[in-house]
Amino acid sequence: MGKIRVGVAGYGTIGQRLADGVAMQDDMELVGIADLAPTLSLRALRECDMIGANNVEYKLYLVDGADKEAFDKCKIPVAGTFEELCKNVDIMLDSAPGGVGAANKANYYEKYGVKAIFQGGEKNSVADVFFHGYANYELGVGKDYLKLTSCNTTGLIRTVDALDREFGIERVAITIIRRVADPGDYHRGLTNALAVDKAPTHQAVDLMTIMPHVQATGILVQTPVTHGHIITVVATPKDGKKITKEQALACFQKHPRIRVVSNDEGFKGNASLFKYGRDLGHRRGDMYEIGLWEDSILESGNDLMYAINIPQEAVTIPETIDGIRAAMKMQLTREEGTAATNKNLGIGKCKELL
Amino acid sequence: MGKIRVGVAGYGTIGQRLADGVAMQDDMELVGIADLAPTLSLRALRECDMIGANNVEYKLYLVDGADKEAFDKCKIPVAGTFEELCKNVDIMLDSAPGGVGAANKANYYEKYGVKAIFQGGEKNSVADVFFHGYANYELGVGKDYLKLTSCNTTGLIRTVDALDREFGIERVAITIIRRVADPGDYHRGLTNALAVDKAPTHQAVDLMTIMPHVQATGILVQTPVTHGHIITVVATPKDGKKITKEQALACFQKHPRIRVVSNDEGFKGNASLFKYGRDLGHRRGDMYEIGLWEDSILESGNDLMYAINIPQEAVTIPETIDGIRAAMKMQLTREEGTAATNKNLGIGKCKELL
Amino acid sequence: MGKIRVGVAGYGTIGQRLADGVAMQDDMELVGIADLAPTLSLRALRECDMIGANNVEYKLYLVDGADKEAFDKCKIPVAGTFEELCKNVDIMLDSAPGGVGAANKANYYEKYGVKAIFQGGEKNSVADVFFHGYANYELGVGKDYLKLTSCNTTGLIRTVDALDREFGIERVAITIIRRVADPGDYHRGLTNALAVDKAPTHQAVDLMTIMPHVQATGILVQTPVTHGHIITVVATPKDGKKITKEQALACFQKHPRIRVVSNDEGFKGNASLFKYGRDLGHRRGDMYEIGLWEDSILESGNDLMYAINIPQEAVTIPETIDGIRAAMKMQLTREEGTAATNKNLGIGKCKELL
Amino acid sequence: MGKIRVGVAGYGTIGQRLADGVAMQDDMELVGIADLAPTLSLRALRECDMIGANNVEYKLYLVDGADKEAFDKCKIPVAGTFEELCKNVDIMLDSAPGGVGAANKANYYEKYGVKAIFQGGEKNSVADVFFHGYANYELGVGKDYLKLTSCNTTGLIRTVDALDREFGIERVAITIIRRVADPGDYHRGLTNALAVDKAPTHQAVDLMTIMPHVQATGILVQTPVTHGHIITVVATPKDGKKITKEQALACFQKHPRIRVVSNDEGFKGNASLFKYGRDLGHRRGDMYEIGLWEDSILESGNDLMYAINIPQEAVTIPETIDGIRAAMKMQLTREEGTAATNKNLGIGKCKELL
Repeated sequence: MGKIRVGVAGYGTIGQRLADGVAMQDDMELVGIADLAPTLSLRALRECDMIGANNVEYKLYLVDGADKEAFDKCKIPVAGTFEELCKNVDIMLDSAPGGVGAANKANYYEKYGVKAIFQGGEKNSVADVFFHGYANYELGVGKDYLKLTSCNTTGLIRTVDALDREFGIERVAITIIRRVADPGDYHRGLTNALAVDKAPTHQAVDLMTIMPHVQATGILVQTPVTHGHIITVVATPKDGKKITKEQALACFQKHPRIRVVSNDEGFKGNASLFKYGRDLGHRRGDMYEIGLWEDSILESGNDLMYAINIPQEAVTIPETIDGIRAAMKMQLTREEGTAATNKNLGIGKCKELL
Repeated sequence: MGKIRVGVAGYGTIGQRLADGVAMQDDMELVGIADLAPTLSLRALRECDMIGANNVEYKLYLVDGADKEAFDKCKIPVAGTFEELCKNVDIMLDSAPGGVGAANKANYYEKYGVKAIFQGGEKNSVADVFFHGYANYELGVGKDYLKLTSCNTTGLIRTVDALDREFGIERVAITIIRRVADPGDYHRGLTNALAVDKAPTHQAVDLMTIMPHVQATGILVQTPVTHGHIITVVATPKDGKKITKEQALACFQKHPRIRVVSNDEGFKGNASLFKYGRDLGHRRGDMYEIGLWEDSILESGNDLMYAINIPQEAVTIPETIDGIRAAMKMQLTREEGTAATNKNLGIGKCKELL
Repeated sequence: MGKIRVGVAGYGTIGQRLADGVAMQDDMELVGIADLAPTLSLRALRECDMIGANNVEYKLYLVDGADKEAFDKCKIPVAGTFEELCKNVDIMLDSAPGGVGAANKANYYEKYGVKAIFQGGEKNSVADVFFHGYANYELGVGKDYLKLTSCNTTGLIRTVDALDREFGIERVAITIIRRVADPGDYHRGLTNALAVDKAPTHQAVDLMTIMPHVQATGILVQTPVTHGHIITVVATPKDGKKITKEQALACFQKHPRIRVVSNDEGFKGNASLFKYGRDLGHRRGDMYEIGLWEDSILESGNDLMYAINIPQEAVTIPETIDGIRAAMKMQLTREEGTAATNKNLGIGKCKELL
Repeated sequence: MGKIRVGVAGYGTIGQRLADGVAMQDDMELVGIADLAPTLSLRALRECDMIGANNVEYKLYLVDGADKEAFDKCKIPVAGTFEELCKNVDIMLDSAPGGVGAANKANYYEKYGVKAIFQGGEKNSVADVFFHGYANYELGVGKDYLKLTSCNTTGLIRTVDALDREFGIERVAITIIRRVADPGDYHRGLTNALAVDKAPTHQAVDLMTIMPHVQATGILVQTPVTHGHIITVVATPKDGKKITKEQALACFQKHPRIRVVSNDEGFKGNASLFKYGRDLGHRRGDMYEIGLWEDSILESGNDLMYAINIPQEAVTIPETIDGIRAAMKMQLTREEGTAATNKNLGIGKCKELL
């Protein structure tokens, strides 16, 4: 089987990272990216010669309504139209603004028989399956349209699914301490306030959609920071059983996409993990793993409590790549699918040093 | 019985508000306040004529090491020394910096037979009782030295004690989303980071000291805001019972020091409550009640989850006044003691409008 | 002459403070306030008995489209309609959202012969004069419609006008370090970013409209804080003259609405002034004076440089009251008009302690 | 001549980037880095295989007092002692905490005849020359000890020196809007406050030390953000001449280390430039160029006003590399020295796209 041909629609915060992630897979080809205007993200790609005359790594296609002259002025070469891109791919990763994905599906994907994976901004009904690489990989195998869980839900489910498979989980009560904006955002923000959203928060509802045998509820509080959400989880095991701190720690340490950290090492909060990603030399300083504080794991009666860090910009990339593997039947099981993604993204390196 | 004579040692954020609170009691006399230097807080008192030639409402005494000339330069009149203040009071509210209270006790309070109430910065061992007006009032009756719970613990216990008395509580798991500084602070701060402290947080331990029959644990996350902590609580009732959302709401609405609010009314977070306090016309915009979001009350299995707001500057004032009432045997029961405090502080007004 | 009858349209951040300010004037009567919905600001007024059955200090009138039942549910008594209010006042302070003021003028003020003063959100063309109490009082005398300068411009002009009258100023170059939101705001905000607006900033243009003989330009940078703007000013005197630091300081200290402060006293930034306002016991902790740092006054060649603090919530209140005095011909000169306002608002108290 | 052998003492925010920068020079060899403890920065280096068994790119030496066992536990290989490193280098880039550099000089550099370049935290007296690559390169040629200007001064001087060489500058008045902490800092911070430091700020004084023929003064305001300082400059040309906006723009566009940006392109503030650096794929997302907003360039009489962005983490790296070139007599003129640095660091790429 040749390489799977992948396109990325929408080159924003998520689209940039999807393109990077696909480019790192040895069994996929990034055919191109599509966008509307010569944004700073595209100008940066041009300035570092990743798009353009010398090194044509990322081919750019224009969506309907784009003004090609604006791209010419910035000396950003254009490879064709979005429709042409659609004709040349097996699957599209759609990270266009909310609602546009549904239109793309109606106008192009169905017409050209292109599969697609949508991000959290689209309605669940746009897809055949609401997907998470670790929790329900098999449901996505061979499907045409998947929708990924949002950043918080993706990271949260990594931990709840891991505990559930090993010990059985009856329910979780979560507190999401949400970063309100991404670095570089000006159009949304919060200044000197903690906003308490109406409860229950949608991430708890989403968790129950993916893991229908687990009850979930929770409260979300917005905070004026940009470097990652923090979630505290109170997990109640099934059948009156108890999970000890040591059992939980061992379970989390085995998971390739969970990075167990501690205050004693110097991981004092979300900003430490953001800095660490930069210091690892990753492109854009990105981090695919969630952080989990070893010293936050607590026993409360039979319940288990712990705190995780969600690097909102990059956390959904591995599970989206898993989705390609499932939809395209590249691997048929979660073990094989996630392992292939992890190998290509370099995930799990931190485990070797334990 | 004449008015109880009260002094306040240390005129910082808490000391200012203790003085205001005592001055509002019809059965207490604020004999004076004591401090070291002509801080902005004292200059403000002078500028608004509350200390000085025309209106001598707040008499100022100087602690050891104070430079009287510095006060003269600012035209702030001085009434005497801290030792003289000690000789003239029945009880001292000690809100000096951590550790100074213990020294004051050794040097002055024991010598002059003055009772004292210490704030959260002192060690528990400085006092006979670790005190909370609603949870263990009777333990403080007639005692010489009390220590108040800290701001988060004070507010948290209001809710847990209320639930416990009505339904019985076995344990709580808390997430404290802590404001890192007060308005006007420059010496501490946090910028674009959420700091995850080592767990369990001391407020859970303190709760168990005050309410030894309840288990408590929790995680504290520091956030870069100044207008009040938010705490989410997961409370597990005793004996496998369940508390419904409606039962919990009714219980909270009855409590004079809990202000039940909602997103629909416009209370979107901690800053809404800070603004509301200012709009009420309270001195300094202070708020004695904690906020509790009606729309955050959730059922999770038999557990109850909810979110509260702690106005850190003023929340311990009522319970400290309760402490005076207990230590001085002004009222012998929690019902009478807290009722007297509430009446004098105007607490409970919001209940009349329900 | 009886008391001047004043109404306030729009009870938001500015409207609240206009109502407070008018109520403090011994020669004005606050006839009523008008708004659309039972906001938290109105609920707070009701809770502290300033509107309602017992103490009817602030009568509330409803603007077109208001739902009276919503007010009834909150037990907020209503005195009548906005049109009825218009019929009963000599002058309206219009602090409705931008654009509504122009409609109010067309629909009501012109019809009932009511004068009006608009805030910075309206276009200049709505008014006969773009007004500042100190810089062009006389232009407003007897006029029907005034528009106040915005908060930054109001405070800035206090200093530039003072220097200009005493020494003559040719031009100013300003850097506005703008607070991005008010305490309690959630709908606007900025998180971990400094936004550099396109230059020149409108406050420089507005200054030139009020003071046409002075050239002004400048740059505005938005910052994620809520407690007051900081402006640095580089002022060039006329005719190659020089203003010394000592001359400037003496000039600023004479101005009733400029509070000269210093780092040595403890005024470390905008949050110190916010805290000081609360500690003064002012309603809502408001501050009418701008702060000016004595230790920021610098000589640069013949130019003068200095930094000021603009308390954005309350700074325009005195100049708006001045506007009433001018429009209603209560006083005919800037000296008399501003002196009357200052006396009634308690401005200048800080000067007595120097 | 063989490659110049360079060491880096202190692997913090600046030391990390100095090591990266030296490793990019084709005429220098990074002999090693030295530090005290297995910080997260060193752990990251180990995790990405840049230090260790497989790829020994960065050799680590331990300073006095380091606990080698702590490094062994983290599987971080150690190459030797700081003294051994000193013996093997021609020049040391000393980015140890303030004061340690002076001790290193006394204990090691003088003993082993090693030249050194100190960062802004050391006193000026530690060095023979207070150095800036563009403003006074020739003064550093052949010298043993240089001290670099701090981040704000380094970036500011790029612009003032450029204007001065082309047009002649008499004086500048600056407003520094300072970011208070770096991403990942918890030990310093500021929350909801703008702190106005006592004036004049040291950067103005430092500028006059480097450029003694220019007068400088200014005010510094601390702000709660992490992604770069903003400085506004009011520059007065010599001899009553005028610099037009167009002349200034052309001058800035020629400078390799000034990136001219605009709001229209999407550069809305300091966070845009931080994001852009990440999107360029630079290691850690670093940016060597300062940003200068084209749409901020203003004329004020004969004065010129403009706003720049200082990427505080990386801005001093190029000038420090220039310092190596000067001290080691690798190039004898500023034109040759800075050109060699720029080529190796890839600076000036953005100019090609204009």
